[in-house]
Amino acid sequence: MQVYEAPLRDMRFLIHELFAKDGFGTFPAHAEFTPDLIDAVLEEAAKLAHDVLLPLNMSGDEEGCTWENGVVRTPKGFKQAYDQFREGGWCALANDPKWGGQGLPETVNKLVEEMISSANLSFGLYPGLTHGGTTAIKAHASPDIQERFLPKMVEGTWSGTMCLTEPHCGTDLGMLRTKAVPQEDGSFKITGNKIFISAGDHDLTENIIHLVLARLPDAPKGVKGISLFVVPKFLIKEDGSIGPRNGVQCTGIEHKMGLKASATCQMSFDDATGWLVGEPHQGLAAMFTMMNTERVSVGVQGLGVGAAAYQAAVAYAKDRIQGRALTGPKRPDLAADPIIVHPDVRRMLMTMRAYTEGCRALSMWVARALDAERHSEDPEIRQRAEDMTALMTPVVKALLTDLGHEAAHLAVQTYGGHGYIREHGVEQYARDARIAMIYEGTNGVQALDLVGRKLPAHGGRYLRSFFHPVAEYIEKNKSTPGMEKMIDALEKAFGALQLATATIAQKGMADPEEAGAASSDYLRLLGLVAIAYLFARSAKIAGIKTMMGQDPDGFYAAKMVTVRFFYERILPQVAGLLTAIKAGKASMMDMPEEAF
Amino acid sequence: MQVYEAPLRDMRFLIHELFAKDGFGTFPAHAEFTPDLIDAVLEEAAKLAHDVLLPLNMSGDEEGCTWENGVVRTPKGFKQAYDQFREGGWCALANDPKWGGQGLPETVNKLVEEMISSANLSFGLYPGLTHGGTTAIKAHASPDIQERFLPKMVEGTWSGTMCLTEPHCGTDLGMLRTKAVPQEDGSFKITGNKIFISAGDHDLTENIIHLVLARLPDAPKGVKGISLFVVPKFLIKEDGSIGPRNGVQCTGIEHKMGLKASATCQMSFDDATGWLVGEPHQGLAAMFTMMNTERVSVGVQGLGVGAAAYQAAVAYAKDRIQGRALTGPKRPDLAADPIIVHPDVRRMLMTMRAYTEGCRALSMWVARALDAERHSEDPEIRQRAEDMTALMTPVVKALLTDLGHEAAHLAVQTYGGHGYIREHGVEQYARDARIAMIYEGTNGVQALDLVGRKLPAHGGRYLRSFFHPVAEYIEKNKSTPGMEKMIDALEKAFGALQLATATIAQKGMADPEEAGAASSDYLRLLGLVAIAYLFARSAKIAGIKTMMGQDPDGFYAAKMVTVRFFYERILPQVAGLLTAIKAGKASMMDMPEEAF
Repeated sequence: MQVYEAPLRDMRFLIHELFAKDGFGTFPAHAEFTPDLIDAVLEEAAKLAHDVLLPLNMSGDEEGCTWENGVVRTPKGFKQAYDQFREGGWCALANDPKWGGQGLPETVNKLVEEMISSANLSFGLYPGLTHGGTTAIKAHASPDIQERFLPKMVEGTWSGTMCLTEPHCGTDLGMLRTKAVPQEDGSFKITGNKIFISAGDHDLTENIIHLVLARLPDAPKGVKGISLFVVPKFLIKEDGSIGPRNGVQCTGIEHKMGLKASATCQMSFDDATGWLVGEPHQGLAAMFTMMNTERVSVGVQGLGVGAAAYQAAVAYAKDRIQGRALTGPKRPDLAADPIIVHPDVRRMLMTMRAYTEGCRALSMWVARALDAERHSEDPEIRQRAEDMTALMTPVVKALLTDLGHEAAHLAVQTYGGHGYIREHGVEQYARDARIAMIYEGTNGVQALDLVGRKLPAHGGRYLRSFFHPVAEYIEKNKSTPGMEKMIDALEKAFGALQLATATIAQKGMADPEEAGAASSDYLRLLGLVAIAYLFARSAKIAGIKTMMGQDPDGFYAAKMVTVRFFYERILPQVAGLLTAIKAGKASMMDMPEEAF
Repeated sequence: MQVYEAPLRDMRFLIHELFAKDGFGTFPAHAEFTPDLIDAVLEEAAKLAHDVLLPLNMSGDEEGCTWENGVVRTPKGFKQAYDQFREGGWCALANDPKWGGQGLPETVNKLVEEMISSANLSFGLYPGLTHGGTTAIKAHASPDIQERFLPKMVEGTWSGTMCLTEPHCGTDLGMLRTKAVPQEDGSFKITGNKIFISAGDHDLTENIIHLVLARLPDAPKGVKGISLFVVPKFLIKEDGSIGPRNGVQCTGIEHKMGLKASATCQMSFDDATGWLVGEPHQGLAAMFTMMNTERVSVGVQGLGVGAAAYQAAVAYAKDRIQGRALTGPKRPDLAADPIIVHPDVRRMLMTMRAYTEGCRALSMWVARALDAERHSEDPEIRQRAEDMTALMTPVVKALLTDLGHEAAHLAVQTYGGHGYIREHGVEQYARDARIAMIYEGTNGVQALDLVGRKLPAHGGRYLRSFFHPVAEYIEKNKSTPGMEKMIDALEKAFGALQLATATIAQKGMADPEEAGAASSDYLRLLGLVAIAYLFARSAKIAGIKTMMGQDPDGFYAAKMVTVRFFYERILPQVAGLLTAIKAGKASMMDMPEEAF
């Protein structure tokens, strides 16, 4: 039962209350986006998600994409939905007005991305990938390339891809073999094979703009010899109209566990014409511009699927009658009580809910930092925001996708046997969510990025962008009546995080494998503390509102229960995580390879 | 890459070493099963799994079962494989020699079940379901019914099913509607609809014997009005040969997330002829005879899939080259190092390994208890064994399926993007393993069974069958040189379990919802302590062997690393579980239903 309604109430709470005063200030560039306007955008997005995208989610999964003679066909209805999406201006939502975008804050954009991911993750990838491409072109390409590609990409008439992976290299891009040979006219001829290219071919847009990593003839070995190229499916004439076909072909699509309505393409480049984006051999940096944008979005994908799965589970738990409450019948009028009366069913629902609301708050915090980084007029705030997005990008990517996937499985479990049956649509969430833990860098790679790059950077400066507000908040609120117990738990969890950080800093300095062995547990620990901090702030607001009798719909009272659940039932995991981190690498590295 | 080889070395360790002296003693009924004979059986089973069942696992998933006009066809090759399985005597392995079984110990049987589940879980369900049926018939049916059905079922010429679930009732069997009307000849006419019937119809056996829950006309309401009937697909003539078709039809099969080569059938009974098994209205007890047998087997299914996934992940991690070790190249002869050099990849592999070996040890302990319960000549041992299987059945079912599923997902994660692609076969493990957490009673229902029935039974007597040996072991070994640290950790974890038990006993007495709110975390806590205990015993044996230089293949050294990993990286979770349990029900039960 796929029943998604965008959680607008919680979204409004985050955007207008929790993050109204968060130290990043306001930005003149966003002055025109009044709360009313933002609410109107969110409401429209909610309608789009519900009316246009949701109805195609199960049918898209069932039908999948098809490939025939180099051409990919998306499932029935996707083309019409994409046209409606594009015409509604949704492709241009957060993009630069200079290129036709609407320049909305990233906070609003991430909420819309969440709704799209909840309603139809497969669909969301088609416009979503374009975003990474435009970001790289804006940041690194020449004005000529920008003018040629950006307007059509921003409006969604053309879509984008990121062509990184090759059959023998995914994480280790240093091994890539695709070649780029310079031509006299300043263009390049690109030749090579790429795999796992999302939206590599499809029938939704009139052109597809590939951003391709390749090596120049004089390229040094490894990652320092990679350059970025823009390679359109169809060449573009002088007047900007569509020209002849370029030398790029989709040679097949993957049969996957899920995300079946999103075409995952094998691409063959055969003397395809492309243009350099940025400097020669600087492709990796340009690629990370795309990747970092995408990584936060992939985290939001995990959140979105988890949020949809939560709603499905709630609907089923209220509807399905089976057995009686442990304390005696609660609905004697029915043959049995709805299963939502059972504590263990509620444990599953509350876990999903706490994950979802906690991850949503974290994604909004990072979105605020993204906005501040781009739009704050205060250079000190910009720096702090930049530090925080650098730190939190791997956390958001890995934590939100891990928990989103877990939420999807809790929804399947809530359904029992019916959850395993395809027609109910809930197992699709589990299959779809699974990829987000893998693509744009596996979650293990995110954890390594966090401990290996982000922690040591600038003498730990990135970390301070997160530790300072948490420490300050604890200090300021520890004696606030009614908050003592929560702040105490937050302080203990934060203490565990600080201890874990010190352990990694110390051991990891001497032996990078020690940092690697701790990385995944550390990312989880940091993520749980981040959510605990944002939840403490949320509960404080909610507590005041309920105390003042300003809770007509029960939203704040419910928020307090959710926060309590998180603090009592999920946050205690930090103790075990710290112990595991302190144990060190021996129990992993001492096993001889042949003994596995 | 599905590459399964049965882990015979670990299996021999468990059966000949760890459980050679475990307080249950030896059984005259098993005197003929010498270690050599047992090893020979395990080796033959390993060959069967590898040569016959494994090659059909991916093709079976791809093709699935088909249903047409009431007839189910299994995937290509399944019929030949089943014939080979049956002719090899594998259907009769653990069954009573009285009915043509080979009477092998349950320990051996469970290891064989694990191999079958690893190689081809879908296949395993066809002979597996028969076992539950024969158990119920042996325990409850009249001699006449036993003679009519058991010989053919035991040899596998006929298969069995368990027909419990109806569209509106799964967990709550009290609501079931299928009717049984007595006939003059002592038979009954059965009418009603059942769903989710594994192996309800197929083309592997000449007859299918359904064990059906239904209500007699004078039945009291609820679970006290359920009776059990045996209903064959084809009626049986006086001479025992196949007679006319009975009034039972498969009206469709489910399209599922996984386990696609196992037919999950909708069954329609329309005046089907059946015979009562056991006393009228005592069907629930008879059904639990089947269920309990099946529940341990379902746990082993989870273990089996996890074990296969572990092997796939190891093979990939050794083969896939990508990046360099954090401490510098380990294979400078290659373009990159195999990913098994990375600590975080090893964290995933070691987690899978610790789960697999720990769960295997636990399943063997319970299998030993099952053997003791049936075959010990000492009534005191029989009682203790019975207590332990009663306590541990829900734990084995839930813990082994949870961890098996988690292991399967860790294998997918080890594969990265390739793990999401169907052709590699590893995502199939994740989909197949998923159902084991649901069927034969969801894992939430297992947890409720543990805290609601098993803990309080006979004043806590069941629990003592587990607590006593653990306490005794700690006491005896706490000052054994070299074991202090491990025993200290075991003692702390056991202390947490005792505290959690006391909390539940105290709060749950006053309010059953408190027990329900704690149930899943408690089951996990108890399961982790059980594995820790068995791992401590394993490590002790391994330590002595390595010290004496009796470790030519490195098995014991590897076992010690695995145990260390479990103690350092997994067991620390008990702290968080205890905190969560102590927090109580409020954060689940305080949320108003409409606020979800």
